[in-house]
Amino acid sequence: MDGIHLLGEWYGCAADLPEMTRAGPLRTLCLRVSEASGMTIVGDRFFQFEPQGVTGTVLLAESHLAIHTWPEHGFVTIDVYVCNYTTDNTAKAELLFRSMQDALMPQHTKFQAIHRGGRDA
Amino acid sequence: MDGIHLLGEWYGCAADLPEMTRAGPLRTLCLRVSEASGMTIVGDRFFQFEPQGVTGTVLLAESHLAIHTWPEHGFVTIDVYVCNYTTDNTAKAELLFRSMQDALMPQHTKFQAIHRGGRDA
Repeated sequence: MDGIHLLGEWYGCAADLPEMTRAGPLRTLCLRVSEASGMTIVGDRFFQFEPQGVTGTVLLAESHLAIHTWPEHGFVTIDVYVCNYTTDNTAKAELLFRSMQDALMPQHTKFQAIHRGGRDA
Repeated sequence: MDGIHLLGEWYGCAADLPEMTRAGPLRTLCLRVSEASGMTIVGDRFFQFEPQGVTGTVLLAESHLAIHTWPEHGFVTIDVYVCNYTTDNTAKAELLFRSMQDALMPQHTKFQAIHRGGRDA
């Protein structure tokens, strides 16, 4: 089950964006961008930390988006993982990842793309 | 925001285990093992594919567990990601990962441990 997993650490994000601080706006952003990237959403869950900060995931037919925000540090980690079971979803994953980055506007980033699975399954 | 992300691809899992095929038993397993590993659960979401197979996540104060099963291939991918914000959660992550592997009994595995974040945040 071949797949691609995009991992980002984003520094210097706009700390006062509602999408950084509150679960509702971040959820809305994640769902909108997932859909716009051609993903099939099958569920989601977001948790509000107090006084601020969010942990959330969107379950996709293609696999998942996961995001964690630390507004007090302007810091975000994000995962976009897609399996390429019946079709190659890599371009959708890259579009979703880039769209989230455009929305949260990090000043600098770390990025890794990890190949998952392989010929055994 | 230093963190460790454990990624597994598990082959030859017992295809007829309820934890492989159905969302309810897999959710119960994930919540039980997360708690037993000392994690703080803040939410979860699991989705049942038909006729079988599950996608699910557990949101943790420490970050997240994500799992996808393909019973027809005996295949599982799993992510355990923890941040080490106020305390080092690496040992908890390793215990959670090993406990899930013991439960789903893969015949062979691929494993990667990815360092995330760093001194910038």
